[in-house]
Amino acid sequence: MTMNIHPIFIAGSWRQDTSSKETFQAHNPKTGELLPDLFPVSEQCTLDEALLAGKMAAHELQSVSNESIAQFLEEYALEIEKRSEQLAEVATLETGLPMHPRLLDIEIPRTTTQLRQAAAGARDGSWQRATIDSASNIRSRLEAMGGPVVVFGPNNFPYAFNAISGGDFAAAIAAGNPVIAKAHPAHPNTSRLLAEAAHNAINKVGLPAATVQMLYHFSNEAGMKLVAAPETAAVAFTGSRKGGMALKAAADAAGTPIYLEMSSLNPVFVLPGAIRERGESIAAELVGSCNLGGGQFCTKPGLTLVVEAPETDAFIGKMTSLFAATPAPTLLTASSAAQIESALNTLTGSGAEILAGGNPDPEGSGFQFLPTLIKVDGGQFLKNAETLQTEAFGPVGMVVVIKDESQLIEVVEQLEGNLTGTLYTDTGGSDDTLYQKVEPLLRIKVGRILNDKAPTGVAVVASMNHGGPFPATGHPGFTAVGLPASICRFAALRCYDAVRANRLPQALADGNPTGSMWRMIDGKMTQGDVPSAV
Amino acid sequence: MTMNIHPIFIAGSWRQDTSSKETFQAHNPKTGELLPDLFPVSEQCTLDEALLAGKMAAHELQSVSNESIAQFLEEYALEIEKRSEQLAEVATLETGLPMHPRLLDIEIPRTTTQLRQAAAGARDGSWQRATIDSASNIRSRLEAMGGPVVVFGPNNFPYAFNAISGGDFAAAIAAGNPVIAKAHPAHPNTSRLLAEAAHNAINKVGLPAATVQMLYHFSNEAGMKLVAAPETAAVAFTGSRKGGMALKAAADAAGTPIYLEMSSLNPVFVLPGAIRERGESIAAELVGSCNLGGGQFCTKPGLTLVVEAPETDAFIGKMTSLFAATPAPTLLTASSAAQIESALNTLTGSGAEILAGGNPDPEGSGFQFLPTLIKVDGGQFLKNAETLQTEAFGPVGMVVVIKDESQLIEVVEQLEGNLTGTLYTDTGGSDDTLYQKVEPLLRIKVGRILNDKAPTGVAVVASMNHGGPFPATGHPGFTAVGLPASICRFAALRCYDAVRANRLPQALADGNPTGSMWRMIDGKMTQGDVPSAV
Repeated sequence: MTMNIHPIFIAGSWRQDTSSKETFQAHNPKTGELLPDLFPVSEQCTLDEALLAGKMAAHELQSVSNESIAQFLEEYALEIEKRSEQLAEVATLETGLPMHPRLLDIEIPRTTTQLRQAAAGARDGSWQRATIDSASNIRSRLEAMGGPVVVFGPNNFPYAFNAISGGDFAAAIAAGNPVIAKAHPAHPNTSRLLAEAAHNAINKVGLPAATVQMLYHFSNEAGMKLVAAPETAAVAFTGSRKGGMALKAAADAAGTPIYLEMSSLNPVFVLPGAIRERGESIAAELVGSCNLGGGQFCTKPGLTLVVEAPETDAFIGKMTSLFAATPAPTLLTASSAAQIESALNTLTGSGAEILAGGNPDPEGSGFQFLPTLIKVDGGQFLKNAETLQTEAFGPVGMVVVIKDESQLIEVVEQLEGNLTGTLYTDTGGSDDTLYQKVEPLLRIKVGRILNDKAPTGVAVVASMNHGGPFPATGHPGFTAVGLPASICRFAALRCYDAVRANRLPQALADGNPTGSMWRMIDGKMTQGDVPSAV
Repeated sequence: MTMNIHPIFIAGSWRQDTSSKETFQAHNPKTGELLPDLFPVSEQCTLDEALLAGKMAAHELQSVSNESIAQFLEEYALEIEKRSEQLAEVATLETGLPMHPRLLDIEIPRTTTQLRQAAAGARDGSWQRATIDSASNIRSRLEAMGGPVVVFGPNNFPYAFNAISGGDFAAAIAAGNPVIAKAHPAHPNTSRLLAEAAHNAINKVGLPAATVQMLYHFSNEAGMKLVAAPETAAVAFTGSRKGGMALKAAADAAGTPIYLEMSSLNPVFVLPGAIRERGESIAAELVGSCNLGGGQFCTKPGLTLVVEAPETDAFIGKMTSLFAATPAPTLLTASSAAQIESALNTLTGSGAEILAGGNPDPEGSGFQFLPTLIKVDGGQFLKNAETLQTEAFGPVGMVVVIKDESQLIEVVEQLEGNLTGTLYTDTGGSDDTLYQKVEPLLRIKVGRILNDKAPTGVAVVASMNHGGPFPATGHPGFTAVGLPASICRFAALRCYDAVRANRLPQALADGNPTGSMWRMIDGKMTQGDVPSAV
């Protein structure tokens, strides 16, 4: 019987999850049918075993070089590239996302780029912020935490945010930690292939066997115990606000750092001059951005805010016709449509009016939903500011029509924390005064502020911030994308005070360990050595 | 009636707290008598007013230059120096700490040094970690959070950790945030003088009036509402584990970053070779460190771990006689003795034996407590590892006598998170093998590891880490001492994506704003400008 159930990747090897009492299958979102492969739902005892193995791996990793960790990340990127066709075939079946361009041309390259950037960060070592005061012989740096990092992956990026290959994974490994990956149950076979690729890379480089472990699924209750376990050093989660908040409560109570990316409406302000100048093209840009990936991007512009003016109706009319003309996308999971409908009920129940779409595609054969535009006025928004900021994770946008500039300020002040905030302004300068009023208020509500550009592109560059104030994330000081900054989340600051030279980590030795690592020595940033005592 | 009650410093001015329903007085710990000055206990409505003023100040501070903030911190240091005699007279009365050397020669200079280092950090701006990718025109930096930072100060350092002048204050201000300071009710008059000094400095530089506010006291319930208020951007707390955990729960539920420094036993391992080589001098060093400041330092070595050996008895005998010979210090507050006795009851109830002291000084006229040494064996420690790690905040040390090296490893693994961990080893190398076994396990339990040096000196240098894993603090990645690193706690990461040049913060402009600020431009650390496009 268990012969047909896929094994789990735990403590360095693939084995049947003999204590599992339940299996699950993924769906083909295009057809709504169950896929044949059976995967185990793991029990608490299996999670405990993963924790123990992860804790031992963390201990072993203390004596593994940055170079080996970098090599693993690079080998893993190569293993992924070797399997890219197979990965795309499996992922397109499990997610409904197209092989071209999305999976093969965009997401796999993004994933391997992240792994290689993490490798470069690990090799360079500057992310450790090594700081040395030579007179007092006190030295400190960020370093691996001392236990496994538990990563929960979302449903919407089967590679680039997968718990076993995405940005959180790459950052946690680059910092020198082992990872216990909780793959998303919507794409288990994709995750299985990735884990095989990771396993090969571990063997090639010779990292501790339990540096990477993966479980397909477990109960919410088991998840809470996992994040609160004393072995768990830190947690990363990308997903729904409900799931994130539950894990956050468990981690907070245990004093375990948790990095969350939960939900975001990504408000877009189209200022009056911009609508006058180029309303049609902005409408097209926004509707395209809102429907990218079936509207299931973290940075989907879900909230468009405009000020009442003669041109506003035409702008909204354009958005409406474009939404109506957009083909119904395939959603990621069997529960996606119900979640969107529940959110739409909340939104319409709070005064929003449906302009386009509003329900699953009646002609769809699987998990298809009609692109949906809703509208509410500013007064109504202010009355129900909390419920009208309910996220509908899918091809849904809301326009807020605001009476005047003073109501606009009130609306900005009612916004929750978001990943992004966008301001479209005219090129002639007529929006500048309003921009200067709105931007300082919007800035403190978001992690990334954009001008005249839709927010769905999250460039994999060092300066990217994929973060923001609560409840978009759990802490406004960190980013989940953008290396090497994202590595620092999974590190502890440790100081070596009067520690003998032969006992210091290489990064804190007098001699620069790489010849190029940036360190702060006696108050000065330098790539050099500690100056010799006179 | 209210004429005799000291005013509060709120929304830019000193005024009577007319809604206060209660007053309190500080004690003179030397005599146990109440001091005459009356201070108000503030009600929720006053805290709400402070939050509103703080929020407005945060908005105004967005357009204040780093240079002005630096000037304020420097002016404030000068104002403190001008008042140092008066500050010392008042603080010695409220804390029982000696004017010389502690208050005037050590703590005031430490405090002004911290303020000046924070000023240097603010002026330099490199703490913002400005990161620019010129090809994509994406730029990010750490910057002020957008609301007031609430700082709760402890009882044990009336200047250097005071909510209105200490390290948390300096760091929060340097990042560009306003501060709402909750002074410790054990030294209100000292805090009042400091607030006057801060007020003068604000006026001189012309910062927003509510950049600094101070309240003397409020209920625990009001404190929880304060940290959970939507206006509060972040919280810093130094104090007891009980108080810290209550505030942490409130802040966590609201999604507000909170930085805690709660409790720490600061375990010290004296390895066998070190005892053989220089047991007597190590005993003297440890007993001195344990009793510094009446044993009321965060980094007091409260736990000494030794392996049973022929020399161990003599080592413990030496510690015992030194504890017995140490004069009874004056504790900081009226409840200190009762808290120590309660902790001692827990410890002796879990098997610890009293070797010296154990009770308040019967000859003391105020809050004096006898220096107390207790002992437990390793087996007992492992049986009651949690209760035997109860902190006794005062002149109390515990020795754990461990059977052998394998039990030593078990004990290390049972240690909670601590600020520091110390290893004394011999100079000849006989302890090296054991060191290599213990250090990797100890390292992950502490924020600072020391060799052959007592942990109570917390040097104010960039490389210092005054932090550590939970429950010593709330997050292992941050330090409360050591500039500029401590500034980053009170900052949000913000990204400017395709933002027009004239709308960028100076720190992210093409030209280096100071000529010397470190930024990462196109992957390279540099003090230069963004290279001109070809």
